[in-house]
Amino acid sequence: MTTPQASAPEVLDESTCWELLATTDLGRIAISTAEGPDIFPINFLVKDREIFFSSAPGTKLVELTAEPVVAFEADGVHDRKRWSVVVRGGATRLSFDADITAAGVHELATMTATDKWNYVRIAPTSITGRRFSALRHLS
Amino acid sequence: MTTPQASAPEVLDESTCWELLATTDLGRIAISTAEGPDIFPINFLVKDREIFFSSAPGTKLVELTAEPVVAFEADGVHDRKRWSVVVRGGATRLSFDADITAAGVHELATMTATDKWNYVRIAPTSITGRRFSALRHLS
Repeated sequence: MTTPQASAPEVLDESTCWELLATTDLGRIAISTAEGPDIFPINFLVKDREIFFSSAPGTKLVELTAEPVVAFEADGVHDRKRWSVVVRGGATRLSFDADITAAGVHELATMTATDKWNYVRIAPTSITGRRFSALRHLS
Repeated sequence: MTTPQASAPEVLDESTCWELLATTDLGRIAISTAEGPDIFPINFLVKDREIFFSSAPGTKLVELTAEPVVAFEADGVHDRKRWSVVVRGGATRLSFDADITAAGVHELATMTATDKWNYVRIAPTSITGRRFSALRHLS
């Protein structure tokens, strides 16, 4: 059995993780539910080392209310190498217009049309990142 | 407050979901742990409407053993529209070389170098997909 070779991934420091996160606005949120883990694509932004995203009303927010610990992942290609950053932390819904405006999250374009938006902040408890020498995807 | 507009996402049928999954080999696995959900990027392949991936020994597999229900997500751009597919199901480690060879997963390139590989199959209990009219990313 032969396995394609790649070198070990580079572990990224925290500052590099945040810099790379700022280069994209597409990520995924993992949550725990009674039926096991679930995962959703989201558009997000970073401000002051926190993750912000908007969400249409529905399951996603309900689950976040019940189980506020989430994992967030984003990845991309930089300098011909693929990177992946994972943030774990607590998710809270923003209740005040001032918070929403301060974060700038109300200007975040999303992939879903809806009249009513909810805005969520993830306060990180950990951030980890890796960069892979084998470029698997360019698109 | 103005919000960028997008039309409602298109719900994809199961066949379309599988066809789109076959166009990429980068996905993410969400698992439940004692410390909340976690998420990992993986290289994967599809065979007979199951997901296969290889994994270096370590946390990922340990958690899969303890909590075999996982959520898997992949996304991409097709025909200038972004799609996202989510598979939920049970993850099992492949124990037999015959299963590994039959799936073809031993030929799957991965982003991580290691001498020892574990191979995992996700047997789906659900597959859902959406296509977004607003193209958020081209890279």
